[in-house]
Amino acid sequence: MEMLKQRIREEGQVLPGDIIKVDGFLNHQIDVELMDAIGGEFARLFGDSGATRVLTVEASGIAIGLATARALGLPLLFAKKGMAKNIGQNIYSADVYSYTRGATYGVYVSQKYLHAEDRVLIVDDFLANGQACMGLVQLCRNAGAEVAGIGIAIEKKWQRGSELLRREGLPVHSLAVIERFENGEAIFA
Amino acid sequence: MEMLKQRIREEGQVLPGDIIKVDGFLNHQIDVELMDAIGGEFARLFGDSGATRVLTVEASGIAIGLATARALGLPLLFAKKGMAKNIGQNIYSADVYSYTRGATYGVYVSQKYLHAEDRVLIVDDFLANGQACMGLVQLCRNAGAEVAGIGIAIEKKWQRGSELLRREGLPVHSLAVIERFENGEAIFA
Repeated sequence: MEMLKQRIREEGQVLPGDIIKVDGFLNHQIDVELMDAIGGEFARLFGDSGATRVLTVEASGIAIGLATARALGLPLLFAKKGMAKNIGQNIYSADVYSYTRGATYGVYVSQKYLHAEDRVLIVDDFLANGQACMGLVQLCRNAGAEVAGIGIAIEKKWQRGSELLRREGLPVHSLAVIERFENGEAIFA
Repeated sequence: MEMLKQRIREEGQVLPGDIIKVDGFLNHQIDVELMDAIGGEFARLFGDSGATRVLTVEASGIAIGLATARALGLPLLFAKKGMAKNIGQNIYSADVYSYTRGATYGVYVSQKYLHAEDRVLIVDDFLANGQACMGLVQLCRNAGAEVAGIGIAIEKKWQRGSELLRREGLPVHSLAVIERFENGEAIFA
């Protein structure tokens, strides 16, 4: 998606540790027009997937999730992180190992809002090693729901998350696939 | 706002401790049409406020923030909670005391995205005692920015957050003001 790549080129900041900061438009300050374009692109890519629901994870997935749900006319569900609080006992949960933090955290959703009849479109801002995404896939599987597709804004290809997801038979589309960083710039695949 | 009150009446679940769960449409599963209506209503109420930016706090403020920013054609900034990670040193931060948890947490934004020239429309899903909102007001004041207004979806009137904010001279609009709970139902002001 050229519009997103352009913003990454112009405003993305490459930091030590293979981090790219896009907090000027994607996950801190949010450019609504860009979100709408991302949502529209996911609606185009997954319009035929039969999705009944969009699923993401707090916090930085919510804006992309809302724009996508809007473009598809579907409800959004965002998984919460950490221990279940104030959400009742009836939850689906999964563990996610974070390589960045070297620790495991939980993601969970209420059983009220994810059902065996659902076909779920999972969206998120970043795909690195795929652990966070697999946590969301696991929530769907726990509910007996099918994953209709996975839509990612920015993929770090060398961390091989999309390989992991495709090996599971999951259709993945990333709008900007970064192959590597070179001289402080993102090189797209 | 009748549409929101209606949803609270139909689907809100009153729990012990004066909690009302609205996770079927507002802060877990999200009804996009309702979000758009809330954003439109805030745009109507604050359209003349001269706002240059919408500010909210992760995670449950983001959907309302995005819908409001969209309706006003403004960028959204969402404050992060906890310790500053991965966002650099140049932040504005404020402490928020949570009566629910009996603990203090931090909120922060990057100095890059909040400026002295800004007029800020703060929005959030809930207003109780006003501490979280005052944290966002403090971020604006730290930046030298002016608060153009505060838009709240659901206010729990007896916890007096709106009194606190109005004493500070801040224009507050809440779309559904709950006066009390009676027989497990919300009674609106």
